[in-house]
Amino acid sequence: MPKNVFYAQSGGVTAVINASACGVLETARQYPEQFGTVFAGRDGILGALTEDLLDTSKETDAAIARLRHTPGGAFGSCRYKLKSDAARRRLLEVFAAHDVGYFFYNGGNDSMDTALKVAELARQEGVPLVTVGIPKTVDNDLAKTDCCPGFGSAAKYVATSMREAGFDVASMARTSTKIFVLEVMGRHAGWLTAACGLAAAAPGDAPHLLLFPEIPFAPEVFLPRVEAAVKAHGYCAIAVSEGLRDAAGNLLSSLGGQDAFGHAQLGGVGQSVAQLIQERLGHKYHWALADYLQRSARHIASQTDVDQAYAVGREAVLAARSGHNAVMPAIHRLSDAPYRWEITLVPLAEVANVERKMPREFITEDGFGVTEVCRRYLLPLLEGEAFPPFAQGLPDYARLTPPRAEKKLADFSVE
Amino acid sequence: MPKNVFYAQSGGVTAVINASACGVLETARQYPEQFGTVFAGRDGILGALTEDLLDTSKETDAAIARLRHTPGGAFGSCRYKLKSDAARRRLLEVFAAHDVGYFFYNGGNDSMDTALKVAELARQEGVPLVTVGIPKTVDNDLAKTDCCPGFGSAAKYVATSMREAGFDVASMARTSTKIFVLEVMGRHAGWLTAACGLAAAAPGDAPHLLLFPEIPFAPEVFLPRVEAAVKAHGYCAIAVSEGLRDAAGNLLSSLGGQDAFGHAQLGGVGQSVAQLIQERLGHKYHWALADYLQRSARHIASQTDVDQAYAVGREAVLAARSGHNAVMPAIHRLSDAPYRWEITLVPLAEVANVERKMPREFITEDGFGVTEVCRRYLLPLLEGEAFPPFAQGLPDYARLTPPRAEKKLADFSVE
Repeated sequence: MPKNVFYAQSGGVTAVINASACGVLETARQYPEQFGTVFAGRDGILGALTEDLLDTSKETDAAIARLRHTPGGAFGSCRYKLKSDAARRRLLEVFAAHDVGYFFYNGGNDSMDTALKVAELARQEGVPLVTVGIPKTVDNDLAKTDCCPGFGSAAKYVATSMREAGFDVASMARTSTKIFVLEVMGRHAGWLTAACGLAAAAPGDAPHLLLFPEIPFAPEVFLPRVEAAVKAHGYCAIAVSEGLRDAAGNLLSSLGGQDAFGHAQLGGVGQSVAQLIQERLGHKYHWALADYLQRSARHIASQTDVDQAYAVGREAVLAARSGHNAVMPAIHRLSDAPYRWEITLVPLAEVANVERKMPREFITEDGFGVTEVCRRYLLPLLEGEAFPPFAQGLPDYARLTPPRAEKKLADFSVE
Repeated sequence: MPKNVFYAQSGGVTAVINASACGVLETARQYPEQFGTVFAGRDGILGALTEDLLDTSKETDAAIARLRHTPGGAFGSCRYKLKSDAARRRLLEVFAAHDVGYFFYNGGNDSMDTALKVAELARQEGVPLVTVGIPKTVDNDLAKTDCCPGFGSAAKYVATSMREAGFDVASMARTSTKIFVLEVMGRHAGWLTAACGLAAAAPGDAPHLLLFPEIPFAPEVFLPRVEAAVKAHGYCAIAVSEGLRDAAGNLLSSLGGQDAFGHAQLGGVGQSVAQLIQERLGHKYHWALADYLQRSARHIASQTDVDQAYAVGREAVLAARSGHNAVMPAIHRLSDAPYRWEITLVPLAEVANVERKMPREFITEDGFGVTEVCRRYLLPLLEGEAFPPFAQGLPDYARLTPPRAEKKLADFSVE
């Protein structure tokens, strides 16, 4: 007898998380003897807690296929941590009420921890639930996988943007802007900042300096480098991570707010750095804040990234089918050039709450650039263009509106 | 006997100004009996003043062809106004020294004024110079042309970005960001802000509110609309023009600096608006500052825009060939759907220093949206994708390094 499936998206969405959803849904549909209705949680795990289950079986194959080229989270996502066994027990209740035997959780570190705890509780309580994590994060900071779906496309976007802005500034620098700063995401790991480094095709190209969260910011070292770039090239283009810190570990910029996990809300360090340069060196600056644009830029997605996002969704279903539990499909690199990769399964216990840092050897000794080994790692992840269809001049993205499954339980209030 | 040509790019560059350069160079090469060497000014008109003439005849046809898909200004541009007849006379001296009989000036309002004054001085002094302006500006504010090359691609970029960020925020709004603000260019005219309005494909889609420089910002009217959008859709996405002003005409945000023309350097109004919402309504926000990314985003250029940019370059040469002087090729719209256009010639005197405003009928009565007539105007300008070639995952843009023509005159110091 088939068991139903529950799929949820978690945390910050990406340009390709829906490609993973597409992989899950299309693959589950191929094995109707094993997988019944696939429910998606509206707004992620909240949908499970509040029994707000979207019945994806009502969507056509054609509609599901369009998820592969649609950014954002098609069913909604959330930043919400299951803090108690009570919450996790509620999940199991909802699953039981809807005959759910498979739980696919598509997220980052926090979500893999949640998936693991749910799997453990089910095991303790003898509930026959199969839990599989599906990796996703533009931050590229999940352990045990060579890269994270979502990162390659964001990397392609920021590197493209930096290259294009570099062409712009280079042509104007003589009489106008001499400093350009692009602020990119990355609280603790400078993966996206490193990706900006790929924009430079020849010596002297933008960007000239990268500011990593891994390297404490020292104005007395940085400013002379800015001046040297302006002297040598007429301008200086800089990529800076939102998580840039000083030697004491203080964030250079924080809006002061916090998210549901207690993380500081970041943003604005690009302007701080640019203003410092203007004050100390007197150069006119411009700065750009890519913000959500970098993680939703499906129009410039990496084909590699789309393929991998789809593959981890598909392989999650195949893993569940072949009896695996509490695992996550990971990307295993076989070679850099030509780039070859395969999917392996890793235990959730080895991924949960482990943050993967960028190796120090990826950053040049002076702290302001990327090394050749870093370029070799990054380049394949941006390879290939996966342009979405366009209509009337704009990307034509899917909007799914699956109906809600009938409620069977009493209301549950989420704190 | 052929006469040589001087071509210069002026003011803020765009994703397609090099397509105009390509049109000029390729067309001039077709008529060697009339057009000799095409010199490009290094850093725009400064190259003429300082006799820094780049000899494009040393570039291959293949290299010139690549300009069509390369953003920025291939020969450099500048913000520099010829303020005196002395400067304009120097231009004529340099032209005479290098046997230049044709002057093509690729820029916006200010540049068309300069071109006109040079043409008038040449006429007064009996110098046989043919001057043709070539329109360019992401601001879309040139008179006597239906649209301006550069605008369509920037419009496509900002509308795509708004649509993608809208998908992102919509999926996260329940527990995270409820307000998203995208700041776009436009000092006096809200063309790019209006373009953001195209992102909405269905009622309720992002953006929900547009803030135009033409409409004085009134928080007491704006904030209830924000709250209503959050209530109705779970979030509110807003596009705001850098030139937003209050009822007294004061800019909501200014970095305090000024460019060479005395224009205030803008930027940051997006954050001001977002913070106002957070303070008054308590919603978490994110904001993005597209800055130069929007005018250099060749990777998402509009095919229509590329075609028109090339056409105005080509037609400038053909106009000069057929004896026109002190004119500018303009885009004349024949029909909206199917979109048809042709090039007409307009006198520089009708374009110089005239700023074209957005018609009030393009903005909805409440001041926060675009009307159907505006959509009909804008949509064709974004039509078609003109993706550049890619190499190693990134757009493969051309870098021309034409040699400098030998100097023949004494140095001239630019103030």
